[in-house]
Amino acid sequence: MKVKNIKIIVFMVFTAAVLLINSKTSEAIFPGAGMRTSGNVIGLRESVNLAWVLLSAFLVFNMQVGFAFLGAGFLKKKNTLNYLAMSFIDFCVGGLVFWMLGFALMYGGSSMAQGLDYGNAFVGLSGFFLAGEAYDVSTASVWLFQVMFAITSCTIVAGAVSERFKFQSHLIYSAFTCGILYPIYGHWVWGGGWLGNLPFGAGMKDFAGSGVVHGLGGLIAFIAAKMVGPRFGKYNPNGTPNCFPGHNLAYVVIGTLILIFGWFGFNAGSSLAVTEFRVAIIATNTFLSACAGAFTILLVSYYRTRISDITLTCNGALAGCVAITASGAYVAPWAAVAIGVIAAIILRVSLYVVEFKLRIDDPVGAISVHGANGLWGLLSVGIFADGSYMGVEGLVTGSAWQLLSQFIGCVTLIAWTLGLGLPMFYMIKKTIGLRVPIKIESSGLDLYEHGMSCYHDEKLV
Amino acid sequence: MKVKNIKIIVFMVFTAAVLLINSKTSEAIFPGAGMRTSGNVIGLRESVNLAWVLLSAFLVFNMQVGFAFLGAGFLKKKNTLNYLAMSFIDFCVGGLVFWMLGFALMYGGSSMAQGLDYGNAFVGLSGFFLAGEAYDVSTASVWLFQVMFAITSCTIVAGAVSERFKFQSHLIYSAFTCGILYPIYGHWVWGGGWLGNLPFGAGMKDFAGSGVVHGLGGLIAFIAAKMVGPRFGKYNPNGTPNCFPGHNLAYVVIGTLILIFGWFGFNAGSSLAVTEFRVAIIATNTFLSACAGAFTILLVSYYRTRISDITLTCNGALAGCVAITASGAYVAPWAAVAIGVIAAIILRVSLYVVEFKLRIDDPVGAISVHGANGLWGLLSVGIFADGSYMGVEGLVTGSAWQLLSQFIGCVTLIAWTLGLGLPMFYMIKKTIGLRVPIKIESSGLDLYEHGMSCYHDEKLV
Amino acid sequence: MKVKNIKIIVFMVFTAAVLLINSKTSEAIFPGAGMRTSGNVIGLRESVNLAWVLLSAFLVFNMQVGFAFLGAGFLKKKNTLNYLAMSFIDFCVGGLVFWMLGFALMYGGSSMAQGLDYGNAFVGLSGFFLAGEAYDVSTASVWLFQVMFAITSCTIVAGAVSERFKFQSHLIYSAFTCGILYPIYGHWVWGGGWLGNLPFGAGMKDFAGSGVVHGLGGLIAFIAAKMVGPRFGKYNPNGTPNCFPGHNLAYVVIGTLILIFGWFGFNAGSSLAVTEFRVAIIATNTFLSACAGAFTILLVSYYRTRISDITLTCNGALAGCVAITASGAYVAPWAAVAIGVIAAIILRVSLYVVEFKLRIDDPVGAISVHGANGLWGLLSVGIFADGSYMGVEGLVTGSAWQLLSQFIGCVTLIAWTLGLGLPMFYMIKKTIGLRVPIKIESSGLDLYEHGMSCYHDEKLV
Repeated sequence: MKVKNIKIIVFMVFTAAVLLINSKTSEAIFPGAGMRTSGNVIGLRESVNLAWVLLSAFLVFNMQVGFAFLGAGFLKKKNTLNYLAMSFIDFCVGGLVFWMLGFALMYGGSSMAQGLDYGNAFVGLSGFFLAGEAYDVSTASVWLFQVMFAITSCTIVAGAVSERFKFQSHLIYSAFTCGILYPIYGHWVWGGGWLGNLPFGAGMKDFAGSGVVHGLGGLIAFIAAKMVGPRFGKYNPNGTPNCFPGHNLAYVVIGTLILIFGWFGFNAGSSLAVTEFRVAIIATNTFLSACAGAFTILLVSYYRTRISDITLTCNGALAGCVAITASGAYVAPWAAVAIGVIAAIILRVSLYVVEFKLRIDDPVGAISVHGANGLWGLLSVGIFADGSYMGVEGLVTGSAWQLLSQFIGCVTLIAWTLGLGLPMFYMIKKTIGLRVPIKIESSGLDLYEHGMSCYHDEKLV
Repeated sequence: MKVKNIKIIVFMVFTAAVLLINSKTSEAIFPGAGMRTSGNVIGLRESVNLAWVLLSAFLVFNMQVGFAFLGAGFLKKKNTLNYLAMSFIDFCVGGLVFWMLGFALMYGGSSMAQGLDYGNAFVGLSGFFLAGEAYDVSTASVWLFQVMFAITSCTIVAGAVSERFKFQSHLIYSAFTCGILYPIYGHWVWGGGWLGNLPFGAGMKDFAGSGVVHGLGGLIAFIAAKMVGPRFGKYNPNGTPNCFPGHNLAYVVIGTLILIFGWFGFNAGSSLAVTEFRVAIIATNTFLSACAGAFTILLVSYYRTRISDITLTCNGALAGCVAITASGAYVAPWAAVAIGVIAAIILRVSLYVVEFKLRIDDPVGAISVHGANGLWGLLSVGIFADGSYMGVEGLVTGSAWQLLSQFIGCVTLIAWTLGLGLPMFYMIKKTIGLRVPIKIESSGLDLYEHGMSCYHDEKLV
Repeated sequence: MKVKNIKIIVFMVFTAAVLLINSKTSEAIFPGAGMRTSGNVIGLRESVNLAWVLLSAFLVFNMQVGFAFLGAGFLKKKNTLNYLAMSFIDFCVGGLVFWMLGFALMYGGSSMAQGLDYGNAFVGLSGFFLAGEAYDVSTASVWLFQVMFAITSCTIVAGAVSERFKFQSHLIYSAFTCGILYPIYGHWVWGGGWLGNLPFGAGMKDFAGSGVVHGLGGLIAFIAAKMVGPRFGKYNPNGTPNCFPGHNLAYVVIGTLILIFGWFGFNAGSSLAVTEFRVAIIATNTFLSACAGAFTILLVSYYRTRISDITLTCNGALAGCVAITASGAYVAPWAAVAIGVIAAIILRVSLYVVEFKLRIDDPVGAISVHGANGLWGLLSVGIFADGSYMGVEGLVTGSAWQLLSQFIGCVTLIAWTLGLGLPMFYMIKKTIGLRVPIKIESSGLDLYEHGMSCYHDEKLV
């Protein structure tokens, strides 16, 4: 009965707090919706770009379906529901935290939309709760697109720590990632912060988030997987790894396809405007890089093992997508193919190093696909950008300044993520703990955390 | 041989009838397609909104994929194919009936597009078969968007009656729902009918169909599940319910994600125009309400049971989506969160009441998710609308008139659905019957209705 | 070690070659991106249509998810991964080949976009590698939409030859199809070639590819399935076929739904412009034809067998989609229903003829769904086109000239596909071989070709 009372009190306090913060909204402010005219060319142009941003946001949201299939397929049956729960609830928590806090830290001061006026080169300070001035259609459209990116970075981590991570601990670091870690680095690159304004080349450029989203997610996955330790039985006493086969590889292929579908929105939508005709090149480059990454790693693995490893091929396509995410807007199609080819090779090397040398257990390959290739994507801008868009010029044009900016962006990303991520996981480890007990791990997390199995045979009913 | 002859005759008669009704079309009428200019701002504006409506319709159609996964996952293996068949074929039947009849009853007289001129406050009377004047691009775009809503209301019911309902009977009430029940209530609210023009507040407002689609579908589900009775073994002799675990809970999570993806089109598309900038707020509110609904019910269930119930969490997200469907356009983001929180609590209470008190067996929770929260969505307009859009002002602005309109809409919805739904199911029960024989139910509907099992182990081949 | 060296050399040679071909790009050419203005109505109109084409391309890509589910569901567990791998990697290979070669052969000389100037009535000759003048936003948007069609035609074949085809051989004919077979026929119809300019009626019309994509894919499937022979055990010594039940029919239903979702983009996107208001009719016709096809075959099969065959119903919906693909733009809604009804009957007859008379083993029904109905779709233009769009007038307007053009298109399609397809498969058969050894076929292709099973039971770990 007491628990019930606590619930009611918590709910009432939360409601009261939110009402207080937003109280002005419902009294005095009439947001821009419906008040702008779209009867002329300027207004219509805004409508067209609004449609583009919203539809792209929907596509990026749909990547959650892809991640759900992909991750679930790689795991054991007994942990499937736990992974899906983590992947589902982290976006619920992340979405709410990004609404309350993260968005303001990321885009405050960027003046990208109404109500985002206050902030500096290091952190944004306006737009909390989408309230006040920020209760506006322009701000809401930016928010919706950006929240999908924030929750993607959380979902990347869920795969790497699956099959042994505590559910509550996942929610805690997801909230921290969407609320602090991701938005502040994002502010530096996209929100008017210091990285985007570096004096070398055109400043550090990460068009759709190879670094901001994938690199950051992959690096957090790296820290998290390292600190939680490998799954029981993954490594033999002599240090050699065992392979745990995924329980449904059809899910892996299907998840990959859905992720590529969403990636079109992720990359081409990041123009925030379809009146930027460049979106056609961006979408084309995304597809070519995915194809090149998949085909390259298929060849590589076939020449080594004489089998056509389809799960590796899927990860190759995703590696190509991750790498082209930063550079897709700035390079020609041939360069997109080259970036995909190199992404596949980096993936292969990184998978080897992570599993065999560093002995980090990453069941879905998130560290190599998103982390290693996120960094490669950042660098690829400095190499292949051909100066045809936004004046970004890489090595192929004879200039090395852009590559310097990109390199600084990489180093900063690593330093920031490790600098905040390590203490965060350390604190969780020392308080709630990161890992479920060994007994739970061997009997499966689904029953323990969620009270039910993912699969049920009706003969038992 | 005789059956073959009948088939041929039926086909020829059908073809002749349709040709007759449409005969003028192919001779004399040249529909507007290609004849309007889009070379100026007015024409281009129409194009932009056309793109928005069509793409939203496609997204809403894709919710069928979500419903298929969601429902199938909650059921037993032996009934999976039957549910999928119901869910698939009801949209085929519903689509054809809505083309022939439903659309004309719903939008005749609304003058929303060409050929929709005749109708009154109670029923529409033009646009049958999209023929004559209604063979026009403007009418087709409205039709396509609306048919997706009509078939959604049928699909909602399929889950609640699954595992014991006769396949033919499902098709019959689906046809009746798409042809009569749904369109006439829809006409009252959206087609220029009396509810939308109530003299209190701005008239009854149901922006995207909390009531028209979800409430109606949920109430039909209520009647259908009540009249067909619980599944064999669901209730013990002493009246306590048993829990039948779903055969694939991964499907439940994935189905929920796909439904949210489609819901963006459902809600934001209901503006029928992206030149209404308000769509940005609508999409944002939809996402926030889903997150709030999911997280709230996760907390509630965790405090009660110490497990993180993921299927309940999924239903919480959907409850948030249902509730915000009516009000998403009229409220601020903080209110969307509040509406989602309350939706989760209503869901929890309703699930309890339906299963334990009313002893109605609803395998997927459709009554509580769509029915109870559809009504809550209608009321939420009258509470949280802040006057920033279309002049709809709820309690938060100090006015109670809107809430009165919403309440009348709720009462009318319940009366209409029960008034027509009860006799409909009663008549089916007395003629064809609603329920498969107990022997079929225990051996599974897949083999009986469809001649095959959904799953097959190749070792037997 | 030597293999490693070869890999490195191959990669370096490839990179060098691509760099050489594209060398001018990175030095001298500044593509149009960002240089056009969209600040006026003309520019904005281009943006709107660009958004439409790109979003449609994304939807068509998503059909790969549908094909993956559909095909996998029809097969045995032990061959699932092999089918998914074929279906996945053929688009990677096809995409790269279409970039290098196919697109230039198809659209060179069409002047549809920049850099597509050279070509004649039989073959296009510019646009290779999207390099030089073709490195432009207009060309990229056309390319992206078209590559999705090219890879669809390959994926259609994968289902028909599944469970016994060699993986490498599939990649070889996929490359040939995307590089030569598909683009040249496509050039004749869509790229300014001779078929589209036939002097009868409005020239041969295939709006979105009933013939170019589905007919061609279905005919290649016919040749491939014939030449590889039936699966072991499919036919008894007396010639009667056995039925191999699919391992997951839920996948079949879900795959069908996803395919219909993508088909909206496939058909309505083929206008290449949403400023063509006709897209509303096209999308409506697509949906109605799918509904009519599904419902018709449900009735037919129910009257014959007294069971509601859901997998057949799914194929009926797809047959309706295939048939309306050519004619959707030119006919009225009632005609779309008629086309769907006839498509279902053709499907039923074709399935019977292929399986029982020709004794060709097509596990997914691709020959009948895509091949037979692709041809029917072409002819349906000549019958039902009502003159309301682009001046295409079929029999219903009293003119038979259009039907003549369509008939010539059908005959040409069959002659071209058989003429090139038969020698292609013959050559593969005589060199690498088409079929895996019988021992592999009976133990399953997944383990042999890909070194792993699709499904894994964790109890064994």
